[in-house]
Amino acid sequence: MRDIGEEADVPVQRRQIVVDWGTSNFRAYLFGADGAIDLEHQAAAGILSVSGNGFEQALEREIGSWLTPGCHVFLSGMITSRNGWLETPYVATPADLAGVAAGAREITSARGARLRFLPGVATRHPLPDVMRGEEIQIFGSIAPDETITLILPGTHSKWVRVERGAIAAFRTFLTGELFALLKAHSIVGRLIPNEPLAFDAEAFLAGVRQAASDDSSGLLHDVFTARSGALLGDFGPEAVADRLSGLVIGHELRAGLALGWAGEAVRLVGEPALCARYRDGLAALGQASEAGPAHAAVAGFRRLAALEGGAGS
Amino acid sequence: MRDIGEEADVPVQRRQIVVDWGTSNFRAYLFGADGAIDLEHQAAAGILSVSGNGFEQALEREIGSWLTPGCHVFLSGMITSRNGWLETPYVATPADLAGVAAGAREITSARGARLRFLPGVATRHPLPDVMRGEEIQIFGSIAPDETITLILPGTHSKWVRVERGAIAAFRTFLTGELFALLKAHSIVGRLIPNEPLAFDAEAFLAGVRQAASDDSSGLLHDVFTARSGALLGDFGPEAVADRLSGLVIGHELRAGLALGWAGEAVRLVGEPALCARYRDGLAALGQASEAGPAHAAVAGFRRLAALEGGAGS
Repeated sequence: MRDIGEEADVPVQRRQIVVDWGTSNFRAYLFGADGAIDLEHQAAAGILSVSGNGFEQALEREIGSWLTPGCHVFLSGMITSRNGWLETPYVATPADLAGVAAGAREITSARGARLRFLPGVATRHPLPDVMRGEEIQIFGSIAPDETITLILPGTHSKWVRVERGAIAAFRTFLTGELFALLKAHSIVGRLIPNEPLAFDAEAFLAGVRQAASDDSSGLLHDVFTARSGALLGDFGPEAVADRLSGLVIGHELRAGLALGWAGEAVRLVGEPALCARYRDGLAALGQASEAGPAHAAVAGFRRLAALEGGAGS
Repeated sequence: MRDIGEEADVPVQRRQIVVDWGTSNFRAYLFGADGAIDLEHQAAAGILSVSGNGFEQALEREIGSWLTPGCHVFLSGMITSRNGWLETPYVATPADLAGVAAGAREITSARGARLRFLPGVATRHPLPDVMRGEEIQIFGSIAPDETITLILPGTHSKWVRVERGAIAAFRTFLTGELFALLKAHSIVGRLIPNEPLAFDAEAFLAGVRQAASDDSSGLLHDVFTARSGALLGDFGPEAVADRLSGLVIGHELRAGLALGWAGEAVRLVGEPALCARYRDGLAALGQASEAGPAHAAVAGFRRLAALEGGAGS
């Protein structure tokens, strides 16, 4: 992969550009006709750094030399939200890649590039849930007609049931955000030492097992025991953070496994160290898992770019 | 009740003084031989306002005129914690009032008053849990030999199983603190309008019912639906806060009721508006409740003061 420089020697009509434009970062890929990345560009030019409605100027500034008349540009991420350039609706489940591409809203740039803003995916079964951006990682983590269950650990973890290549159902869990809040702001977090600590796998797994056990009285009680256990001397303050992590992730795993989606092995997609926690937590509960691709988003964009003419395939 | 002024005309040997000394507030009661409050004093003189180890000077400043040689003073609240005057251990469940009084640690003040620092109550069954201060409200909410289940809603809600007048078992739920964190700091809270809103009972009860329903995939997912439901137009942003309140309280109620402690009616002890939410939430789940006394802590202190000689009864 090279950074942006001269014009790439790809025929104009075959150019597919995808832009992952989030709150803080801008990432763009130019795919050649063979599906390989010809150019890649990254910048700290997220939507928060764009003043007023200057998104088109920002796009020109970042990848202007790629934008030729008639070229296709898919845009994904918070750029498609209410605070972005063009808000797109949600596509309902079941949603496959072609359906997501077809749900894009298109405008033509001053330079004649066809800008396609991708939709998010929403479900109402059994409760309202939404994603915006993760769908690209999902399509980059599966074979076109695969049936599998994915977990995308993170701030807002996703459990995703994929059936024959389409997002059939999903659940968002506030796991990462809640852990960060409890650590930074709660009475439990006050016990956590300030200095950085090595990961305590034993404390983490004890938390996972407690959350999944019959002894658990739910998350609201379990998180308090990460404090009371330390007050009563069951473990030291240096174990509180990883025990709390295990309790919160353990409650996600318990609820996710109760969906009955897991099957023989779930596939973990995301940051390797976090996926390793999920892998070990799942194993402690008797559930096998496998690692997804290292660059799921890029793989998803490649599949998107390969859709001939974008929405039509 | 009168505020501190002249010396009270109660025989010295009958004087019982109780001090509820918390992080932010100082409350003291002087009980006469008939069990009635003769004097009451309150001040914003919590332990955080005391510099260095100046607790004895602070006590003299607040109620020095009450402190005569040989008088008994019970101290409760954060003054008995690691950050207070004298740290006391925890009494194990089952814990009755006499057992709590007997677990006090005593020192004699310069003026000859016998200062008794009350312990907290701890359990290890099935998981470690602690309380420090709530036990006084509990003993003030029950008849001496009663068997009943209490709920003390709040920042750290308590479900308490009382058997023949003793705290037999309990669970702490981080309900109030977690709701406040989610409202102030999470992605869900960002949707909540800034202006004050009237309580939306319908949104609250919808949250309680969702949390207790088979559709729930646990608290981590449910709290996210308070955002996604608004994004998908199921309810307006003005309903998010009370729906979130219902979801969090609903998960406490679900876990508490699963303990099998409730019986015909649970007793609610605490701030009336919050107890009303719990009453309505419990009713929506088919559980009857009754209101505890309006001034449970004072009633508990009265019982404590009535123990002849303090620990000996």
